[in-house]
Amino acid sequence: MSLSFTISARDSSTRARRGRVTTLHGSFETPAFMPVATAATMKGILPRDVKASGAEIILNNAYHLLVRVGVERMRALGGTHGFMRWDGPILTDSGGFQAFSMADINTLDEDGVTFRSFVDGSRIRVGPRESMEIQNAIGADIIMAFDDCPPAARQEGDATSKPAVDPHAYRARVVDALARTTRWLEACKKHHARPDEQALFGIVQGGTDLELRSQSARDITGIELPGYAIGGVAVGEGTDEIRRVVEHTAPLLPDSKPRYLMGVGYPRDIVMAVRAGVDMFDCVLPTRNGRNGFAFTRQGSLRLRNACHTLDQRPIEEDCDCIACAGGFSRAYLRHLFMAEEMLGPILVTHHNLRLYQRLMLDIRRAITDDAWSSFVASWPVADPVASMGSEAVGDGRSEPETER
Amino acid sequence: MSLSFTISARDSSTRARRGRVTTLHGSFETPAFMPVATAATMKGILPRDVKASGAEIILNNAYHLLVRVGVERMRALGGTHGFMRWDGPILTDSGGFQAFSMADINTLDEDGVTFRSFVDGSRIRVGPRESMEIQNAIGADIIMAFDDCPPAARQEGDATSKPAVDPHAYRARVVDALARTTRWLEACKKHHARPDEQALFGIVQGGTDLELRSQSARDITGIELPGYAIGGVAVGEGTDEIRRVVEHTAPLLPDSKPRYLMGVGYPRDIVMAVRAGVDMFDCVLPTRNGRNGFAFTRQGSLRLRNACHTLDQRPIEEDCDCIACAGGFSRAYLRHLFMAEEMLGPILVTHHNLRLYQRLMLDIRRAITDDAWSSFVASWPVADPVASMGSEAVGDGRSEPETER
Repeated sequence: MSLSFTISARDSSTRARRGRVTTLHGSFETPAFMPVATAATMKGILPRDVKASGAEIILNNAYHLLVRVGVERMRALGGTHGFMRWDGPILTDSGGFQAFSMADINTLDEDGVTFRSFVDGSRIRVGPRESMEIQNAIGADIIMAFDDCPPAARQEGDATSKPAVDPHAYRARVVDALARTTRWLEACKKHHARPDEQALFGIVQGGTDLELRSQSARDITGIELPGYAIGGVAVGEGTDEIRRVVEHTAPLLPDSKPRYLMGVGYPRDIVMAVRAGVDMFDCVLPTRNGRNGFAFTRQGSLRLRNACHTLDQRPIEEDCDCIACAGGFSRAYLRHLFMAEEMLGPILVTHHNLRLYQRLMLDIRRAITDDAWSSFVASWPVADPVASMGSEAVGDGRSEPETER
Repeated sequence: MSLSFTISARDSSTRARRGRVTTLHGSFETPAFMPVATAATMKGILPRDVKASGAEIILNNAYHLLVRVGVERMRALGGTHGFMRWDGPILTDSGGFQAFSMADINTLDEDGVTFRSFVDGSRIRVGPRESMEIQNAIGADIIMAFDDCPPAARQEGDATSKPAVDPHAYRARVVDALARTTRWLEACKKHHARPDEQALFGIVQGGTDLELRSQSARDITGIELPGYAIGGVAVGEGTDEIRRVVEHTAPLLPDSKPRYLMGVGYPRDIVMAVRAGVDMFDCVLPTRNGRNGFAFTRQGSLRLRNACHTLDQRPIEEDCDCIACAGGFSRAYLRHLFMAEEMLGPILVTHHNLRLYQRLMLDIRRAITDDAWSSFVASWPVADPVASMGSEAVGDGRSEPETER
């Protein structure tokens, strides 16, 4: 068995559940937040400190490791656990999302997608077979199906440069993608060479169309797998749309298996999804925002470049036990580091945000066991969907950018 | 007493001595290597990890803290120990070297130098009085005299764009600088507001002219101070020239006080200077080279970007106990990090280099106590002046660059 899942407590008034997932590299408690170590490194943070933040499982991006390292070299190096020195559970995404959204040139056919390497411009092909190949070589404990991810439709009021799409044409593309995603999942299962060591999860798509979500959930869960994910969420839509899709889709996934909401998100979105019955989360928000000087707190967020912090001797958060706060680094010092473009600024705020997210998950798990949602919500204003504010994630929320400090 | 120095052992065949310097923030063993935390941060490294490398004293650059933070704010923040969370001894240089060499526009007069801030272009003036003001505000345990540092003369075969200088005019400028440096040292002593808490060191100049070095040593040591430094070394001249100046000058400084060789250097230069009787060293080589993927080892140096490391599962150095080597991070992984421009590459190699330098100092101190130079040299090929190789330091070796990851 590549993976087992046990549920130890359920909230009486919602679908929230607490549990534990066990893999060959150890176990993690759920609901779990998995920080993103895109190219087999959490930017600027040593694995021992990722562990110290409370994270029990982390994510690597297969796309980046395919382009940067490749299948043969990854095989020769013996996989990501030894390579990056993380001995706990690891999850890899399939590379599909990035191949569709990040690559300069991509062509889609029945067997996959072809794109240009951002490193050397070479032609790279990835489909269900190739995705399984690189994910088998990486050797993560949980691996994801290669899915067809059509770009998100342009939303009303969307200020981006995405072209306006005929809604009927767009729906036809999404329906087409659903069918292909199901065929590709079958192909992934067939090509997956290490099913006893690595658990393959299927991904439900369907955009914001609940009927399509239902159909996709039926198709995907019709294929027997150790876990299932909700994909195509938090790709530009607002909190209310995320809620509508997640609250509809999560209960359609088997109760006895872990449910993973991909690329989400803000504390308020995580709390909402936990109450809908989701068990696993990943997002680049704590790390990416941390590198840019945005600190999450229980109350909201702080922009540490702001002049108001110039002489502020307080830590980011008084009661926080992270390396930055417990280490006594002041907001004044952090502002100085960001103004001077010193690496230690991004590092310290990333430490804080990683710990903040894990403290949130700890309190969520405790709230489920104790059936104590109201006191939980009172102590986490940032998780309140109405009160909380925050700048939105920019770009691809499912992997860290390539060229950035 | 701001500082005390005791000598516990002397080498029988050289001038090398082992001792301990005690300050208000604790003590450090000598010969000591002080890593450089330019803007009150060791780039990418937490203070706890600097300490774990074995460093007992670190250096801040007054110039950068003057421009970035300023006297008033530094006073309001209570000084650098609390600001950067380093509770051990700290040394600040005076800002003179950077004001003369880094600033875009500088004008020299009898009371100091005026230059433009690299942050906002504002006009900043620094002389003995202002240097003491900022160094008193920073609050380091050892502070340095503000000296007149004329740019180095163009050497034969020097490929830089420095203009050729008439040797007589150049010598006149150096002689002039010596006299001014002595007057400025008197002024520093007079303006130093915290002599009971911070030890002021004088700096001997004189370029590569041994007669001028002797004169400067007489003038500077004629002023009673807790310690003395050799400045103007390793500003472009080769190992042999450094040796000639250091072997001449070090014995001219009082035996009972700590001797500090500023901005030096490579392991071979440090070993040479220790044998000439020097006690304290600082240099950006371990940190700057580390960030650029150059690792020091006992045997020589490694360029981790080289393709030969692509599949190399060995650590940088087999017997090293640093966070990178003992942590099991392979050369293959480090190369991957540098190729992908990931912060963890510079961080890990900086860790290694910091520890390598401290291991060198540990072995040097042991060799002095045990009178065991030959076995020491045998175990440190990189410290052998003939056998060792290495790319030269680029630019200002006395502070870290501003705009760099």
